[in-house]
Amino acid sequence: MSTEEAKVKLYWLEQSRSQRILWLLEELKVKYEVEIFHRNKQTFLAPPELEKVHPLGKSPVITITPAGADAKPIVLAESGWMTEYLCTHYPEGQRLVPKRWQEGKENTIGGETEAYMRYKYYLHYAEGTLMPYLVMSLVIGRLKGGDIPFFVRPITSIVANRIISLFIAPNIKKNLAMLNDQLSTSGGKYLCYDQLTAADILMSFPLLAAKGRFAEIVPGWEKTYPRVVEYIKTLESNPGYKKSVAKVEELDGKFQASL
Amino acid sequence: MSTEEAKVKLYWLEQSRSQRILWLLEELKVKYEVEIFHRNKQTFLAPPELEKVHPLGKSPVITITPAGADAKPIVLAESGWMTEYLCTHYPEGQRLVPKRWQEGKENTIGGETEAYMRYKYYLHYAEGTLMPYLVMSLVIGRLKGGDIPFFVRPITSIVANRIISLFIAPNIKKNLAMLNDQLSTSGGKYLCYDQLTAADILMSFPLLAAKGRFAEIVPGWEKTYPRVVEYIKTLESNPGYKKSVAKVEELDGKFQASL
Repeated sequence: MSTEEAKVKLYWLEQSRSQRILWLLEELKVKYEVEIFHRNKQTFLAPPELEKVHPLGKSPVITITPAGADAKPIVLAESGWMTEYLCTHYPEGQRLVPKRWQEGKENTIGGETEAYMRYKYYLHYAEGTLMPYLVMSLVIGRLKGGDIPFFVRPITSIVANRIISLFIAPNIKKNLAMLNDQLSTSGGKYLCYDQLTAADILMSFPLLAAKGRFAEIVPGWEKTYPRVVEYIKTLESNPGYKKSVAKVEELDGKFQASL
Repeated sequence: MSTEEAKVKLYWLEQSRSQRILWLLEELKVKYEVEIFHRNKQTFLAPPELEKVHPLGKSPVITITPAGADAKPIVLAESGWMTEYLCTHYPEGQRLVPKRWQEGKENTIGGETEAYMRYKYYLHYAEGTLMPYLVMSLVIGRLKGGDIPFFVRPITSIVANRIISLFIAPNIKKNLAMLNDQLSTSGGKYLCYDQLTAADILMSFPLLAAKGRFAEIVPGWEKTYPRVVEYIKTLESNPGYKKSVAKVEELDGKFQASL
Protein backbone atom coordinates (compact mmCIF):
# COMPACT_ATOMS: atom_id res chain seq x y z
CA MET A 1 0.00 0.00 0.00
CA SER A 2 2.05 2.90 -1.29
CA THR A 3 -0.09 5.52 0.34
CA GLU A 4 2.64 7.69 1.81
CA GLU A 5 2.54 10.37 -0.79
CA ALA A 6 -1.05 10.26 -2.03
CA LYS A 7 -2.74 13.62 -1.48
CA VAL A 8 -6.21 13.54 -0.01
CA LYS A 9 -8.56 16.49 -0.18
CA LEU A 10 -12.03 16.69 1.32
CA TYR A 11 -14.56 19.12 -0.10
CA TRP A 12 -16.48 19.97 3.04
CA LEU A 13 -19.90 21.61 3.15
CA GLU A 14 -21.54 23.04 6.26
CA GLN A 15 -24.43 21.02 7.74
CA SER A 16 -23.77 18.07 5.47
CA ARG A 17 -22.75 14.43 5.39
CA SER A 18 -19.16 15.57 4.90
CA GLN A 19 -18.59 15.83 8.67
CA ARG A 20 -18.42 12.07 9.02
CA ILE A 21 -15.75 11.80 6.33
CA LEU A 22 -13.71 14.33 8.27
CA TRP A 23 -14.10 12.10 11.32
CA LEU A 24 -13.07 9.06 9.27
CA LEU A 25 -9.96 10.84 7.97
CA GLU A 26 -9.03 11.71 11.56
CA GLU A 27 -9.39 8.05 12.59
CA LEU A 28 -7.34 6.89 9.63
CA LYS A 29 -4.53 9.27 10.63
CA VAL A 30 -4.28 10.38 7.02
CA LYS A 31 -2.81 13.72 6.07
CA TYR A 32 -5.52 15.63 4.26
CA GLU A 33 -6.55 19.06 3.10
CA VAL A 34 -10.03 20.49 3.55
CA GLU A 35 -11.72 23.00 1.28
CA ILE A 36 -14.68 24.68 2.92
CA PHE A 37 -17.99 25.39 1.14
CA HIS A 38 -21.08 27.16 2.42
CA ARG A 39 -24.70 26.77 1.49
CA ASN A 40 -26.68 29.52 -0.23
CA LYS A 41 -28.35 31.41 2.61
CA GLN A 42 -31.72 31.69 0.81
CA THR A 43 -32.08 28.31 -0.85
CA PHE A 44 -29.87 26.29 1.54
CA LEU A 45 -28.45 24.58 -1.58
CA ALA A 46 -24.78 23.69 -2.03
CA PRO A 47 -22.84 26.27 -4.09
CA PRO A 48 -22.39 25.55 -7.83
CA GLU A 49 -18.58 25.47 -7.38
CA LEU A 50 -18.93 21.92 -6.01
CA GLU A 51 -20.08 20.78 -9.45
CA LYS A 52 -16.55 21.41 -10.68
CA VAL A 53 -15.35 18.63 -8.39
CA HIS A 54 -18.17 16.15 -9.07
CA PRO A 55 -21.05 16.58 -11.55
CA LEU A 56 -23.73 16.19 -8.89
CA GLY A 57 -22.28 19.05 -6.85
CA LYS A 58 -22.76 17.32 -3.52
CA SER A 59 -20.61 16.96 -0.44
CA PRO A 60 -18.87 14.86 0.74
CA VAL A 61 -16.61 14.37 -2.19
CA ILE A 62 -12.91 13.68 -1.93
CA THR A 63 -10.05 13.65 -4.38
CA ILE A 64 -7.02 11.42 -3.94
CA THR A 65 -3.99 12.13 -6.07
CA PRO A 66 -1.69 9.09 -6.06
CA ALA A 67 2.05 9.61 -5.74
CA GLY A 68 3.92 10.03 -9.03
CA ALA A 69 4.37 12.76 -11.59
CA ASP A 70 1.71 11.63 -14.07
CA ALA A 71 -0.92 10.74 -11.47
CA LYS A 72 -4.45 11.96 -12.03
CA PRO A 73 -6.70 12.65 -9.07
CA ILE A 74 -9.32 10.03 -8.27
CA VAL A 75 -12.69 11.58 -7.43
CA LEU A 76 -14.71 9.65 -4.86
CA ALA A 77 -18.36 10.27 -4.08
CA GLU A 78 -21.04 8.32 -2.15
CA SER A 79 -20.17 8.14 1.54
CA GLY A 80 -20.41 4.35 1.78
CA TRP A 81 -18.08 3.82 -1.14
CA MET A 82 -15.50 6.39 -0.07
CA THR A 83 -15.54 4.81 3.39
CA GLU A 84 -14.77 1.41 1.91
CA TYR A 85 -12.08 2.84 -0.35
CA LEU A 86 -10.29 4.71 2.40
CA CYS A 87 -10.49 1.80 4.88
CA THR A 88 -9.07 -0.56 2.25
CA HIS A 89 -6.10 1.60 1.37
CA TYR A 90 -5.01 3.05 4.72
CA PRO A 91 -3.54 0.74 7.37
CA GLU A 92 -5.59 2.25 10.23
CA GLY A 93 -8.68 1.17 8.30
CA GLN A 94 -8.15 -2.38 9.58
CA ARG A 95 -9.07 -1.18 13.05
CA LEU A 96 -12.38 0.21 11.74
CA VAL A 97 -13.53 -2.86 9.81
CA PRO A 98 -14.52 -6.09 11.60
CA LYS A 99 -12.71 -9.31 10.78
CA ARG A 100 -14.43 -10.85 7.78
CA TRP A 101 -14.38 -14.64 8.19
CA GLN A 102 -15.05 -16.98 11.07
CA GLU A 103 -12.11 -19.29 11.73
CA GLY A 104 -12.20 -22.23 9.32
CA LYS A 105 -15.19 -20.89 7.40
CA GLU A 106 -13.33 -18.71 4.91
CA ASN A 107 -15.06 -18.13 1.56
CA THR A 108 -18.21 -20.04 2.44
CA ILE A 109 -21.78 -18.82 2.49
CA GLY A 110 -22.55 -17.89 6.07
CA GLY A 111 -18.83 -17.97 6.90
CA GLU A 112 -18.72 -14.24 7.61
CA THR A 113 -18.67 -12.99 11.19
CA GLU A 114 -21.82 -11.40 12.54
CA ALA A 115 -19.91 -8.13 13.04
CA TYR A 116 -18.80 -8.07 9.40
CA MET A 117 -22.33 -8.78 8.15
CA ARG A 118 -23.61 -5.87 10.19
CA TYR A 119 -20.79 -3.63 9.05
CA LYS A 120 -21.53 -4.16 5.37
CA TYR A 121 -25.27 -3.79 5.91
CA TYR A 122 -24.87 -0.42 7.64
CA LEU A 123 -22.49 0.78 4.94
CA HIS A 124 -25.49 0.67 2.59
CA TYR A 125 -28.30 1.28 5.10
CA ALA A 126 -27.15 4.71 6.33
CA GLU A 127 -27.75 6.33 2.93
CA GLY A 128 -29.96 3.73 1.28
CA THR A 129 -32.65 3.63 3.96
CA LEU A 130 -32.27 5.94 6.94
CA MET A 131 -31.22 9.23 5.31
CA PRO A 132 -34.01 9.40 2.70
CA TYR A 133 -36.67 9.43 5.45
CA LEU A 134 -34.83 12.18 7.28
CA VAL A 135 -34.39 14.31 4.17
CA MET A 136 -38.04 13.81 3.32
CA SER A 137 -39.10 14.87 6.81
CA LEU A 138 -37.01 18.02 6.33
CA VAL A 139 -38.60 18.85 2.97
CA ILE A 140 -42.15 18.03 4.09
CA GLY A 141 -41.57 19.90 7.37
CA ARG A 142 -41.04 23.08 5.36
CA LEU A 143 -44.69 22.92 4.30
CA LYS A 144 -45.47 24.00 7.85
CA GLY A 145 -42.86 26.74 8.02
CA GLY A 146 -42.22 30.40 7.28
CA ASP A 147 -41.47 29.87 3.57
CA ILE A 148 -45.18 29.21 2.99
CA PRO A 149 -47.50 32.27 2.85
CA PHE A 150 -49.41 32.49 6.15
CA PHE A 151 -52.88 32.32 4.56
CA VAL A 152 -52.29 28.88 3.02
CA ARG A 153 -50.13 27.53 5.83
CA PRO A 154 -53.06 25.98 7.75
CA ILE A 155 -53.84 23.83 4.70
CA THR A 156 -50.27 22.91 3.85
CA SER A 157 -49.69 22.08 7.53
CA ILE A 158 -52.59 19.62 7.55
CA VAL A 159 -51.22 17.97 4.42
CA ALA A 160 -47.69 17.87 5.84
CA ASN A 161 -48.89 16.35 9.11
CA ARG A 162 -50.80 13.71 7.15
CA ILE A 163 -47.73 12.69 5.13
CA ILE A 164 -45.66 12.63 8.32
CA SER A 165 -48.17 10.55 10.29
CA LEU A 166 -49.00 8.10 7.49
CA PHE A 167 -45.62 7.62 5.87
CA ILE A 168 -42.63 9.22 7.58
CA ALA A 169 -43.28 8.63 11.31
CA PRO A 170 -44.13 4.89 11.01
CA ASN A 171 -40.95 4.33 9.00
CA ILE A 172 -38.76 6.33 11.37
CA LYS A 173 -40.23 4.36 14.30
CA LYS A 174 -39.39 1.07 12.61
CA ASN A 175 -35.84 2.27 11.97
CA LEU A 176 -35.31 3.48 15.54
CA ALA A 177 -36.74 0.20 16.88
CA MET A 178 -34.38 -1.83 14.68
CA LEU A 179 -31.36 0.21 15.76
CA ASN A 180 -32.38 -0.03 19.42
CA ASP A 181 -32.64 -3.80 19.05
CA GLN A 182 -29.33 -4.11 17.18
CA LEU A 183 -27.59 -2.12 19.90
CA SER A 184 -28.93 -4.58 22.49
CA THR A 185 -27.42 -7.53 20.62
CA SER A 186 -24.14 -6.04 19.39
CA GLY A 187 -22.29 -7.02 22.55
CA GLY A 188 -21.11 -3.49 23.09
CA LYS A 189 -21.71 0.22 22.76
CA TYR A 190 -21.54 0.27 18.98
CA LEU A 191 -23.65 -1.22 16.18
CA CYS A 192 -21.41 -4.05 14.97
CA TYR A 193 -19.73 -5.06 18.23
CA ASP A 194 -18.00 -3.42 21.18
CA GLN A 195 -15.65 -1.29 19.09
CA LEU A 196 -16.06 1.68 16.82
CA THR A 197 -16.26 0.76 13.14
CA ALA A 198 -16.40 2.92 10.04
CA ALA A 199 -20.11 2.00 9.86
CA ASP A 200 -20.69 3.83 13.15
CA ILE A 201 -18.93 6.86 11.70
CA LEU A 202 -21.21 6.67 8.67
CA MET A 203 -24.28 6.35 10.89
CA SER A 204 -23.23 9.35 12.97
CA PHE A 205 -24.49 11.91 10.49
CA PRO A 206 -28.14 10.86 10.20
CA LEU A 207 -28.41 10.29 13.95
CA LEU A 208 -26.54 13.33 15.26
CA ALA A 209 -27.96 15.72 12.71
CA ALA A 210 -31.54 14.50 13.04
CA LYS A 211 -31.75 13.90 16.79
CA GLY A 212 -33.49 17.25 17.23
CA ARG A 213 -36.20 16.20 14.78
CA PHE A 214 -36.98 12.80 16.25
CA ALA A 215 -38.90 14.34 19.17
CA GLU A 216 -41.16 16.18 16.73
CA ILE A 217 -41.80 13.16 14.51
CA VAL A 218 -41.93 10.46 17.21
CA PRO A 219 -42.98 12.00 20.55
CA GLY A 220 -41.40 10.20 23.51
CA TRP A 221 -38.72 8.59 21.34
CA GLU A 222 -36.06 8.98 24.04
CA LYS A 223 -37.95 6.70 26.43
CA THR A 224 -38.91 4.20 23.76
CA TYR A 225 -35.45 3.83 22.23
CA PRO A 226 -33.01 4.42 25.12
CA ARG A 227 -30.16 2.51 23.52
CA VAL A 228 -30.27 4.78 20.49
CA VAL A 229 -30.07 7.81 22.80
CA GLU A 230 -27.09 6.23 24.55
CA TYR A 231 -25.47 5.42 21.22
CA ILE A 232 -25.81 9.01 19.99
CA LYS A 233 -24.10 10.17 23.22
CA THR A 234 -21.33 7.61 22.71
CA LEU A 235 -20.73 8.87 19.17
CA GLU A 236 -20.70 12.52 20.26
CA SER A 237 -18.23 11.87 23.03
CA ASN A 238 -15.84 9.88 20.82
CA PRO A 239 -12.39 11.54 20.71
CA GLY A 240 -12.24 11.25 16.91
CA TYR A 241 -15.63 12.90 16.51
CA LYS A 242 -14.58 15.70 18.83
CA LYS A 243 -11.41 16.18 16.80
CA SER A 244 -13.48 16.52 13.63
CA VAL A 245 -15.64 19.17 15.29
CA ALA A 246 -12.56 21.03 16.54
CA LYS A 247 -11.12 20.89 13.03
CA VAL A 248 -14.20 22.61 11.59
CA GLU A 249 -14.20 25.21 14.34
CA GLU A 250 -10.56 25.91 13.51
CA LEU A 251 -11.22 26.18 9.77
CA ASP A 252 -14.66 27.72 9.71
CA GLY A 253 -15.16 29.42 13.06
CA LYS A 254 -18.20 27.44 14.15
CA PHE A 255 -19.81 24.03 13.88
CA GLN A 256 -23.44 22.98 13.61
CA ALA A 257 -24.55 19.37 13.20
CA SER A 258 -28.23 19.86 12.41
CA LEU A 259 -29.97 18.55 9.32
CA MET B 1 -17.36 -21.97 -2.30
CA SER B 2 -19.66 -24.68 -1.04
CA THR B 3 -22.79 -23.09 -2.44
CA GLU B 4 -24.36 -26.20 -3.94
CA GLU B 5 -26.84 -26.78 -1.19
CA ALA B 6 -27.47 -23.32 0.21
CA LYS B 7 -31.15 -22.43 -0.13
CA VAL B 8 -31.94 -18.97 -1.42
CA LYS B 9 -35.34 -17.37 -1.00
CA LEU B 10 -36.42 -13.98 -2.33
CA TYR B 11 -39.28 -12.16 -0.66
CA TRP B 12 -40.71 -10.35 -3.67
CA LEU B 13 -43.11 -7.41 -3.53
CA GLU B 14 -45.03 -6.00 -6.50
CA GLN B 15 -43.80 -2.67 -7.91
CA SER B 16 -40.67 -2.72 -5.81
CA ARG B 17 -36.91 -2.87 -5.93
CA SER B 18 -37.14 -6.64 -5.58
CA GLN B 19 -37.47 -7.13 -9.35
CA ARG B 20 -33.80 -6.38 -9.87
CA ILE B 21 -32.76 -9.03 -7.34
CA LEU B 22 -34.86 -11.53 -9.26
CA TRP B 23 -32.94 -10.51 -12.39
CA LEU B 24 -29.65 -10.87 -10.51
CA LEU B 25 -30.58 -14.37 -9.30
CA GLU B 26 -31.41 -15.33 -12.90
CA GLU B 27 -27.99 -14.08 -14.06
CA LEU B 28 -26.25 -15.93 -11.25
CA LYS B 29 -27.96 -19.18 -12.30
CA VAL B 30 -28.79 -19.82 -8.66
CA LYS B 31 -31.65 -22.08 -7.64
CA TYR B 32 -34.04 -19.96 -5.63
CA GLU B 33 -37.55 -19.79 -4.28
CA VAL B 34 -39.77 -16.72 -4.49
CA GLU B 35 -42.47 -15.76 -2.03
CA ILE B 36 -44.88 -13.19 -3.45
CA PHE B 37 -46.23 -10.22 -1.47
CA HIS B 38 -48.73 -7.56 -2.52
CA ARG B 39 -49.14 -3.99 -1.42
CA ASN B 40 -52.16 -2.80 0.52
CA LYS B 41 -54.56 -1.49 -2.15
CA GLN B 42 -55.51 1.63 -0.18
CA THR B 43 -52.22 2.71 1.37
CA PHE B 44 -49.88 1.13 -1.21
CA LEU B 45 -47.72 0.02 1.74
CA ALA B 46 -45.99 -3.36 1.97
CA PRO B 47 -47.95 -5.93 4.03
CA PRO B 48 -46.94 -6.36 7.70
CA GLU B 49 -46.00 -10.02 7.04
CA LEU B 50 -42.72 -8.80 5.56
CA GLU B 51 -41.69 -7.56 9.01
CA LYS B 52 -41.43 -11.19 10.09
CA VAL B 53 -38.57 -11.61 7.63
CA HIS B 54 -36.76 -8.32 8.35
CA PRO B 55 -37.72 -5.72 10.98
CA LEU B 56 -38.10 -2.90 8.44
CA GLY B 57 -40.65 -4.91 6.47
CA LYS B 58 -39.25 -3.90 3.09
CA SER B 59 -38.56 -5.79 -0.10
CA PRO B 60 -36.18 -6.93 -1.46
CA VAL B 61 -35.03 -9.14 1.34
CA ILE B 62 -33.53 -12.57 0.84
CA THR B 63 -32.70 -15.44 3.14
CA ILE B 64 -29.88 -17.84 2.45
CA THR B 65 -29.75 -21.04 4.43
CA PRO B 66 -26.28 -22.60 4.20
CA ALA B 67 -25.94 -26.32 3.70
CA GLY B 68 -25.77 -28.39 6.92
CA ALA B 69 -28.21 -29.56 9.55
CA ASP B 70 -27.59 -26.82 12.12
CA ALA B 71 -27.43 -23.94 9.64
CA LYS B 72 -29.40 -20.82 10.42
CA PRO B 73 -30.73 -18.65 7.61
CA ILE B 74 -28.81 -15.47 6.84
CA VAL B 75 -31.14 -12.52 6.25
CA LEU B 76 -29.88 -10.00 3.72
CA ALA B 77 -31.36 -6.56 3.14
CA GLU B 78 -30.17 -3.42 1.27
CA SER B 79 -30.00 -4.08 -2.47
CA GLY B 80 -26.38 -2.96 -2.86
CA TRP B 81 -25.17 -5.22 -0.09
CA MET B 82 -27.13 -8.28 -1.17
CA THR B 83 -25.79 -7.74 -4.69
CA GLU B 84 -22.22 -7.76 -3.38
CA TYR B 85 -22.87 -10.78 -1.21
CA LEU B 86 -24.42 -12.86 -3.98
CA CYS B 87 -21.78 -11.88 -6.55
CA THR B 88 -19.01 -12.82 -4.11
CA HIS B 89 -20.38 -16.24 -3.30
CA TYR B 90 -21.73 -17.50 -6.62
CA PRO B 91 -19.27 -18.28 -9.43
CA GLU B 92 -21.37 -16.53 -12.12
CA GLY B 93 -20.93 -13.35 -10.08
CA GLN B 94 -17.43 -12.98 -11.52
CA ARG B 95 -18.99 -12.24 -14.92
CA LEU B 96 -21.03 -9.39 -13.38
CA VAL B 97 -18.21 -7.64 -11.50
CA PRO B 98 -15.39 -5.83 -13.37
CA LYS B 99 -11.81 -6.89 -12.78
CA ARG B 100 -10.53 -4.99 -9.77
CA TRP B 101 -6.86 -4.14 -10.34
CA GLN B 102 -4.89 -2.84 -13.26
CA GLU B 103 -2.01 -5.15 -14.17
CA GLY B 104 0.95 -4.47 -11.84
CA LYS B 105 -0.95 -1.94 -9.74
CA GLU B 106 -2.51 -4.35 -7.25
CA ASN B 107 -3.30 -2.94 -3.80
CA THR B 108 -2.22 0.61 -4.60
CA ILE B 109 -4.23 3.78 -4.42
CA GLY B 110 -5.48 4.46 -7.93
CA GLY B 111 -4.59 0.89 -8.93
CA GLU B 112 -8.22 -0.05 -9.51
CA THR B 113 -9.61 -0.24 -13.03
CA GLU B 114 -11.96 2.52 -14.14
CA ALA B 115 -14.72 -0.08 -14.61
CA TYR B 116 -14.33 -1.32 -11.03
CA MET B 117 -14.40 2.22 -9.62
CA ARG B 118 -17.62 2.89 -11.47
CA TYR B 119 -19.08 -0.44 -10.39
CA LYS B 120 -18.57 0.26 -6.70
CA TYR B 121 -19.81 3.83 -7.03
CA TYR B 122 -23.09 2.72 -8.66
CA LEU B 123 -23.57 0.03 -6.03
CA HIS B 124 -24.02 2.87 -3.54
CA TYR B 125 -25.38 5.56 -5.87
CA ALA B 126 -28.50 3.69 -7.02
CA GLU B 127 -30.04 3.76 -3.53
CA GLY B 128 -27.95 6.46 -1.87
CA THR B 129 -28.60 9.20 -4.42
CA LEU B 130 -30.91 8.41 -7.31
CA MET B 131 -33.77 6.56 -5.60
CA PRO B 132 -34.45 9.14 -2.86
CA TYR B 133 -35.24 11.83 -5.47
CA LEU B 134 -37.58 9.48 -7.27
CA VAL B 135 -39.39 8.42 -4.11
CA MET B 136 -39.69 12.06 -3.07
CA SER B 137 -41.15 12.99 -6.47
CA LEU B 138 -43.70 10.21 -5.97
CA VAL B 139 -44.68 11.42 -2.49
CA ILE B 140 -44.77 15.12 -3.46
CA GLY B 141 -46.63 14.27 -6.67
CA ARG B 142 -49.49 12.93 -4.56
CA LEU B 143 -50.10 16.48 -3.30
CA LYS B 144 -51.52 17.13 -6.76
CA GLY B 145 -53.59 13.97 -6.94
CA GLY B 146 -56.96 12.49 -6.10
CA ASP B 147 -56.10 11.75 -2.45
CA ILE B 148 -56.25 15.48 -1.72
CA PRO B 149 -59.74 17.03 -1.32
CA PHE B 150 -60.59 18.98 -4.50
CA PHE B 151 -61.09 22.32 -2.73
CA VAL B 152 -57.53 22.47 -1.40
CA ARG B 153 -55.90 20.79 -4.38
CA PRO B 154 -55.16 24.07 -6.20
CA ILE B 155 -53.07 25.19 -3.22
CA THR B 156 -51.32 21.90 -2.59
CA SER B 157 -50.60 21.66 -6.33
CA ILE B 158 -48.86 25.04 -6.32
CA VAL B 159 -46.77 23.96 -3.32
CA ALA B 160 -45.95 20.60 -4.92
CA ASN B 161 -44.93 22.25 -8.19
CA ARG B 162 -42.70 24.64 -6.28
CA ILE B 163 -40.89 21.81 -4.44
CA ILE B 164 -40.55 19.94 -7.74
CA SER B 165 -39.19 22.93 -9.66
CA LEU B 166 -36.85 24.19 -6.92
CA PHE B 167 -35.55 20.94 -5.50
CA ILE B 168 -36.50 17.74 -7.29
CA ALA B 169 -36.26 18.66 -11.00
CA PRO B 170 -32.81 20.33 -10.82
CA ASN B 171 -31.44 17.30 -9.00
CA ILE B 172 -33.00 14.79 -11.39
CA LYS B 173 -31.58 16.79 -14.32
CA LYS B 174 -28.10 16.68 -12.83
CA ASN B 175 -28.41 12.94 -12.31
CA LEU B 176 -29.66 12.28 -15.84
CA ALA B 177 -26.87 14.49 -17.24
CA MET B 178 -24.25 12.57 -15.25
CA LEU B 179 -25.59 9.21 -16.40
CA ASN B 180 -25.76 10.41 -20.01
CA ASP B 181 -22.16 11.51 -19.79
CA GLN B 182 -20.99 8.31 -18.10
CA LEU B 183 -22.67 6.25 -20.83
CA SER B 184 -20.73 8.24 -23.43
CA THR B 185 -17.41 7.38 -21.77
CA SER B 186 -18.04 3.80 -20.64
CA GLY B 187 -16.84 2.35 -23.93
CA GLY B 188 -20.03 0.39 -24.39
CA LYS B 189 -23.75 0.10 -23.88
CA TYR B 190 -23.55 -0.22 -20.11
CA LEU B 191 -22.44 2.06 -17.28
CA CYS B 192 -19.12 0.50 -16.29
CA TYR B 193 -17.93 -0.77 -19.68
CA ASP B 194 -19.27 -2.70 -22.65
CA GLN B 195 -20.69 -5.57 -20.58
CA LEU B 196 -23.56 -5.95 -18.19
CA THR B 197 -22.52 -5.70 -14.54
CA ALA B 198 -24.49 -6.18 -11.35
CA ALA B 199 -24.45 -2.38 -11.01
CA ASP B 200 -26.52 -2.09 -14.18
CA ILE B 201 -28.99 -4.57 -12.72
CA LEU B 202 -29.16 -2.44 -9.59
CA MET B 203 -29.69 0.72 -11.65
CA SER B 204 -32.46 -0.92 -13.65
CA PHE B 205 -35.11 -0.39 -11.00
CA PRO B 206 -34.91 3.39 -10.57
CA LEU B 207 -34.62 3.93 -14.33
CA LEU B 208 -37.20 1.47 -15.60
CA ALA B 209 -39.72 2.18 -12.87
CA ALA B 210 -39.38 5.97 -13.09
CA LYS B 211 -39.04 6.46 -16.84
CA GLY B 212 -42.73 7.40 -17.06
CA ARG B 213 -42.19 10.17 -14.51
CA PHE B 214 -39.13 11.77 -16.08
CA ALA B 215 -41.24 13.40 -18.84
CA GLU B 216 -43.40 15.05 -16.20
CA ILE B 217 -40.50 16.29 -14.08
CA VAL B 218 -38.03 17.16 -16.86
CA PRO B 219 -39.97 17.96 -20.07
CA GLY B 220 -38.02 16.96 -23.19
CA TRP B 221 -35.71 14.64 -21.24
CA GLU B 222 -35.63 12.07 -24.05
CA LYS B 223 -33.99 14.53 -26.45
CA THR B 224 -31.62 15.94 -23.85
CA TYR B 225 -30.37 12.62 -22.50
CA PRO B 226 -30.55 10.23 -25.48
CA ARG B 227 -27.95 7.84 -24.11
CA VAL B 228 -30.03 7.29 -20.99
CA VAL B 229 -33.06 6.49 -23.17
CA GLU B 230 -30.93 4.03 -25.14
CA TYR B 231 -29.58 2.50 -21.93
CA ILE B 232 -33.09 1.95 -20.55
CA LYS B 233 -34.01 0.16 -23.80
CA THR B 234 -30.86 -1.96 -23.54
CA LEU B 235 -31.75 -2.99 -19.99
CA GLU B 236 -35.35 -3.80 -20.93
CA SER B 237 -34.29 -5.94 -23.84
CA ASN B 238 -31.70 -7.90 -21.86
CA PRO B 239 -32.52 -11.64 -21.86
CA GLY B 240 -31.99 -11.87 -18.08
CA TYR B 241 -34.36 -8.98 -17.43
CA LYS B 242 -36.96 -10.56 -19.71
CA LYS B 243 -36.59 -13.83 -17.81
CA SER B 244 -37.22 -12.03 -14.52
CA VAL B 245 -40.40 -10.48 -15.96
CA ALA B 246 -41.55 -13.86 -17.30
CA LYS B 247 -40.90 -15.37 -13.86
CA VAL B 248 -43.20 -12.82 -12.20
CA GLU B 249 -45.88 -13.33 -14.84
CA GLU B 250 -45.69 -17.06 -14.19
CA LEU B 251 -45.89 -16.65 -10.41
CA ASP B 252 -48.18 -13.65 -10.09
CA GLY B 253 -50.12 -13.43 -13.34
CA LYS B 254 -48.96 -9.96 -14.33
CA PHE B 255 -45.99 -7.61 -14.12
CA GLN B 256 -45.81 -3.84 -13.74
CA ALA B 257 -42.53 -1.94 -13.41
CA SER B 258 -43.82 1.49 -12.40
CA LEU B 259 -42.79 3.36 -9.29
